[in-house]
Amino acid sequence: MATMLRPTHGGERYELTSPTAMPKADGFLWNQSMMIQVTCRGYTTSQFMQPEPAKYANAPNLEAKTFMQPEKSYYSHHPGRFVYIKDEETGRLFSAPYEPVRGPVDKFTFSVGKSDIKWEVENLGIRVEMTLSLPTHDIAELWTIKVANVSGRARKISVYPYFPIGNMSWMNQCAEYREDLGGVVASSVTPYQKAEDYFKNKFFKDKTYFLCETVPDSWETMQLAFEGEGGLHDPTALKEPVLRGGDARYENPAAAVQYRLALGVEETHDLRFLFGPAFDDDEIRKMKSTYLSQGGFEKSMRDYAEYIHKGKGCLQMETPDKDLDNFVNHWLPRQCYYHGDVNRLSTDPQTRNYMQDNMGMSFIKPEVTRHAILTALSQQEPSGAMPDGILISEGAELKYINQIPHTDHCVWLPVTLQVYLAETADYALLQETIELRDGSTHTVFDGFSKAMNWLLHERDERGLSYIAQGDWCDPMNMVGYKGKGVSGWLTIATAYALNLWAEVCSEVGRPEPAKHYRSRAADVNAVANTHFWDGSWFSRGITDDNVPFGVQEDIEGRIWLNPQTWSILSGAASKEQIAKIMPQVEEQLYTPYGVAMFGPPYSKMREDVGRVTQKYPGSGENASIYNHAAIFYIYSLYTIGEKDKAYELLRQMLPGPREEDYIQRGQLPVYIPNYYRGAWREYPRTAGRSSQLFNTGTMPWVYRCFVEGLCGLRGDAEGLVVRPQLPSHWEGIRVTRVFRGATFNVAIRRDEGVQEVRVVQDGKALEEPRVTLVEKGRTYMLEVTVPV
Amino acid sequence: MATMLRPTHGGERYELTSPTAMPKADGFLWNQSMMIQVTCRGYTTSQFMQPEPAKYANAPNLEAKTFMQPEKSYYSHHPGRFVYIKDEETGRLFSAPYEPVRGPVDKFTFSVGKSDIKWEVENLGIRVEMTLSLPTHDIAELWTIKVANVSGRARKISVYPYFPIGNMSWMNQCAEYREDLGGVVASSVTPYQKAEDYFKNKFFKDKTYFLCETVPDSWETMQLAFEGEGGLHDPTALKEPVLRGGDARYENPAAAVQYRLALGVEETHDLRFLFGPAFDDDEIRKMKSTYLSQGGFEKSMRDYAEYIHKGKGCLQMETPDKDLDNFVNHWLPRQCYYHGDVNRLSTDPQTRNYMQDNMGMSFIKPEVTRHAILTALSQQEPSGAMPDGILISEGAELKYINQIPHTDHCVWLPVTLQVYLAETADYALLQETIELRDGSTHTVFDGFSKAMNWLLHERDERGLSYIAQGDWCDPMNMVGYKGKGVSGWLTIATAYALNLWAEVCSEVGRPEPAKHYRSRAADVNAVANTHFWDGSWFSRGITDDNVPFGVQEDIEGRIWLNPQTWSILSGAASKEQIAKIMPQVEEQLYTPYGVAMFGPPYSKMREDVGRVTQKYPGSGENASIYNHAAIFYIYSLYTIGEKDKAYELLRQMLPGPREEDYIQRGQLPVYIPNYYRGAWREYPRTAGRSSQLFNTGTMPWVYRCFVEGLCGLRGDAEGLVVRPQLPSHWEGIRVTRVFRGATFNVAIRRDEGVQEVRVVQDGKALEEPRVTLVEKGRTYMLEVTVPV
Repeated sequence: MATMLRPTHGGERYELTSPTAMPKADGFLWNQSMMIQVTCRGYTTSQFMQPEPAKYANAPNLEAKTFMQPEKSYYSHHPGRFVYIKDEETGRLFSAPYEPVRGPVDKFTFSVGKSDIKWEVENLGIRVEMTLSLPTHDIAELWTIKVANVSGRARKISVYPYFPIGNMSWMNQCAEYREDLGGVVASSVTPYQKAEDYFKNKFFKDKTYFLCETVPDSWETMQLAFEGEGGLHDPTALKEPVLRGGDARYENPAAAVQYRLALGVEETHDLRFLFGPAFDDDEIRKMKSTYLSQGGFEKSMRDYAEYIHKGKGCLQMETPDKDLDNFVNHWLPRQCYYHGDVNRLSTDPQTRNYMQDNMGMSFIKPEVTRHAILTALSQQEPSGAMPDGILISEGAELKYINQIPHTDHCVWLPVTLQVYLAETADYALLQETIELRDGSTHTVFDGFSKAMNWLLHERDERGLSYIAQGDWCDPMNMVGYKGKGVSGWLTIATAYALNLWAEVCSEVGRPEPAKHYRSRAADVNAVANTHFWDGSWFSRGITDDNVPFGVQEDIEGRIWLNPQTWSILSGAASKEQIAKIMPQVEEQLYTPYGVAMFGPPYSKMREDVGRVTQKYPGSGENASIYNHAAIFYIYSLYTIGEKDKAYELLRQMLPGPREEDYIQRGQLPVYIPNYYRGAWREYPRTAGRSSQLFNTGTMPWVYRCFVEGLCGLRGDAEGLVVRPQLPSHWEGIRVTRVFRGATFNVAIRRDEGVQEVRVVQDGKALEEPRVTLVEKGRTYMLEVTVPV
Repeated sequence: MATMLRPTHGGERYELTSPTAMPKADGFLWNQSMMIQVTCRGYTTSQFMQPEPAKYANAPNLEAKTFMQPEKSYYSHHPGRFVYIKDEETGRLFSAPYEPVRGPVDKFTFSVGKSDIKWEVENLGIRVEMTLSLPTHDIAELWTIKVANVSGRARKISVYPYFPIGNMSWMNQCAEYREDLGGVVASSVTPYQKAEDYFKNKFFKDKTYFLCETVPDSWETMQLAFEGEGGLHDPTALKEPVLRGGDARYENPAAAVQYRLALGVEETHDLRFLFGPAFDDDEIRKMKSTYLSQGGFEKSMRDYAEYIHKGKGCLQMETPDKDLDNFVNHWLPRQCYYHGDVNRLSTDPQTRNYMQDNMGMSFIKPEVTRHAILTALSQQEPSGAMPDGILISEGAELKYINQIPHTDHCVWLPVTLQVYLAETADYALLQETIELRDGSTHTVFDGFSKAMNWLLHERDERGLSYIAQGDWCDPMNMVGYKGKGVSGWLTIATAYALNLWAEVCSEVGRPEPAKHYRSRAADVNAVANTHFWDGSWFSRGITDDNVPFGVQEDIEGRIWLNPQTWSILSGAASKEQIAKIMPQVEEQLYTPYGVAMFGPPYSKMREDVGRVTQKYPGSGENASIYNHAAIFYIYSLYTIGEKDKAYELLRQMLPGPREEDYIQRGQLPVYIPNYYRGAWREYPRTAGRSSQLFNTGTMPWVYRCFVEGLCGLRGDAEGLVVRPQLPSHWEGIRVTRVFRGATFNVAIRRDEGVQEVRVVQDGKALEEPRVTLVEKGRTYMLEVTVPV
């Protein structure tokens, strides 16, 4: 197979050279106000916040407002950014990037960088380079379209950028070319019916502008007039010498402009465009003057690259596995940064997502994590319960899934805190005062204790944790909706959370609560063993009608990954039990594409389990390779020293070394999706396919696995503990670890001569593998040898 | 211009011979469970009730659930029903009806009948005939696809019906060919999150089937695999000898099948398909055995034609205007029947719509009107107020606009009653007992009186009617949202309603209430004159902040049609006032396409009027030619004998005699849309265009104008009053009027010799133009002469 994918710039970019090998291959850019996902073929999905997610380029019909969907389907009128090129001498046509003409092209490159996305497409002797960048704060797309004559002879061509705007509103929409503003402006009114909604919508950015730095020769602003009878693959409007110059009046708008160019041999022509939403003409004018010039673009691109650079993380690796290095050094912290910086462009992130997305920031900007912990705790209920979502913008409301009671949110508090403290040793946080919504106050320490007490309280007479309408598997909504069903995972997770909290209590010199919570954790683990241990693994729970599930007898949903993982973490599983569990996980849940969340998949509704059983097998939460669950299992393997198994699974989840892997997944190695399709026994054709949804709590854990697991460079109260877990077939690695303001240059190598980890710091052997009294600003050189 | 549109079968069909002249030209079929709208190019919109409207063929993306939209946009992946034909010898391709290939074809006919819709498309020497019919009750489409070799030589072709199923669900969707069922079955799960919703959705028809009477040679069930890189205009799958036979697994489904045919000269081949939703395999099997055979199709088509025939109405005209005859004799009652039979496929129709849709049934099946009056009154509130919507199916809730308080619903009770009584003289209705929701009971008479009292109560200290968040112009939601604003129209409409009710009181021998309500009506008309008469017309209202609007001083929304119309009906306007009003309506509101609802259009938000001012000018309610308002004006003209003006406006609203009119409107003359685009001064390009939305309260009033106005054959308590109002340029007409079970064959002619209407009944001159003691089952011959 010809190589169609390649890393460039030391892995900071990925280039795809065929638009058909991975038709959905994509990249994404964001700033704190917006997000854009673009595919190699030119389709795009962009959102901005006002404050709920909104669009300035729409589908051709009235689309439902919904959370971001996995495995999105694309179709010819899907929103996108395109440029048609017409040879004025022959009338021949092609389009870049690939859609809508979909013609074979002589050369194609889709190149995803950390702070821009580029295409280079060559056909009919013309090269088209398209570049997309974003501002750091404003909502706009900066597009450069560079056209070069590479045919070796003088050419006459027309260049037609075509940015469909789609169905903006059933209430009011139109578009026209505005000579005064130098571009197409489409206007609309966000539909509403109740008078009170008018005041909510009044200042919405209901206009979409497409501004041209260079005045075009002609334009069209109505989608239908542009397409005509020819269809988007061969638009009627392009058969005329110039575009009609028409308006759109309650007709789907589009921005299409024409440049008639005469290009000498090797001559190039640069065009710049600004595309985005605005409230009014003044705002459009302001955007134009700020950005729409060569200098404006260059400054914005520098600023944006700097903004992205701030998310570079605390770890740089140099290992025998270059693909892995690329991912961990560049893309993994970038995806963590995206999550921590914009909270999935939600105004009410689910509490468990909010905690973990911000947990990832411990490795990037720990002050963000600190702020998130304080924000979340300020919304804790007097009972100690955490709400289903954290409201992070004014006027936000709990929506969708956050209106359905889940019982696990408190678990994620100590889990997040552990990472934050390991990275910062900021124990002062625990003494901060929180003001709750009812005006009462207490310390962070007390807030955590109350959350732990709530977990202990919400259990049945057996000591098992109620599941209500779900826990860390949203759609398991009917196990406990009658108020009796309990969760195996949550019971075990409660023990884990209690232990984590007990550890923090110890570290801050509070032995009594430490003892208390540790002892309660042991109790919980004991009852978990009594009621959930099924002989070879832990069950997933017991339904309202007292039926255990996730057990040997089950034909579908027989074994669930999370209870096994967390039994390792919580101490519920003894060594003997772990030795029974692991082969079961391997036999029943391993797939060629990763570890499935449970198995076998449900093929039909099981009414006492719920919605998850109705989801499509192998997609969503129904027995897919849910990376968030999979990475926890990997993390648990590191906690018990299973470094080879852990590495093998990590390798499977992350960009693999073989091109076939990418092709099966259909995704470039620039982010981890929330799931890969599972059900590989049932549906081998689709197994392994990426969901293409980059919103997931997975990455902080992947990062943690590299930092604490593979590289073994984890903080504790006094300093940096060194305990690498290289896979057996590696001789050594080099790592740069930024930690508490210091930089550690670490060389790790295997040595047959050592029995335990030995660390030489700046030429001096340490007594134990721990660097204490870390000095901010200082660079440490560590030579680490690990036993074979 | 070549003739592209023609009536056939005595006007019972309309045929269009160009798919591009009117690309949105459409027809619709329905039964009590479903509705389907199809365009000449093959795009479709179909809905069924479970009990809320649902779809079995979907857009390619996740579409919003919304009320039926006007001026829908179509795009290449819009749901539709298509058949590709491939010449196996040359590989050339075309599609019927026209999409998705959009190739030029040798012959094209789109033919809309009352009970079926047909296409005949010829290309490459092959003729394709497609016929769509519906069952009378079940939810399914019956498709016949007939292929004929008209090339004069033997041919080898492949025939590929292609029915996209689209994005069924983000939770679960798939499709496969089922040999046991003989067709493609796509399955899905309606998405939900809350456990309680599971029980609502549990028995939804979440499967879509496409059943083939003849086993196909190959098939494809995945949209993307079918389309491939070729695009829908040139699908990749059709380049292979046979289709892949593949499945769709969490991928957008489609039903595509292939028949490889060898056709001799003039040989034809008939194929039959069944397409629709089902709950399970059993239901699919049952549908197949009931319908999928030549006999099954023929029986169903006969039954359906009979069902449609039941809506044929009470009037057949033979006038000098054949287009008008076609419309009034066939299409107008059909559209009334649709509304009365299915209530716009809504579970909670707006009260004013429910009343008027059922009012139209007075002319078709008066027992339906009776039932509707009783149903509506049983939902009246103890205060006498009518709710914003009438719940007509179990578990229905007031949705959308019905959650917003409107103050006009009581008005429509006596308006509806008047028509019902004129048609039936069923005064016994008034003595029926109604049980209200609180268990209390009263008579229909009392219910009406309470409704009238409520209208009298909901007025301010000046005696003007509060508008709250709207009246008979939904989006005027900010005139009175603070509780003070009043409606000019509603005040006048209240007087009209009181007068109508007073008349009924008289007719049933209740002189005291008659006198009371008549006197209150006079009071209301008086205060209306004091506060709303603006010198040359009546204003539209006075806002919360005491600002009159719809007045001389207004630059936008200066004059509104409804207050003028109803001032004529209510008696608020004196003859002198009417003489001032009419020229203003003509000058300010007449357009070449009909009478606008108000003028000039609002170009921007007026916060003290509301949402209507933000709608797109000339569309929706913003100064469009809103046919429902326009027909009331026409009706009012008949009440004052303005027969020529009335006819002229009717002619403008209904299918015109000139082909250009259809082309501007973009619609076949088979229904009246809710609006034509207005704002013809501002946006002449789009003015006159049809909304293509056939849900409207217009038709009962059009019918009434013909029955009572033009033909002048209206009932009263004792019989049939004869008072024709032929336009001046007509010499005479013949009418068959079915009335109270009798049939009246009426010849009406102008006669210079008469001063008033004279009627000869069965050869005998009547003293007054009224036939009394009408005998059920009898046929009457009336010779009517009217003065010139």
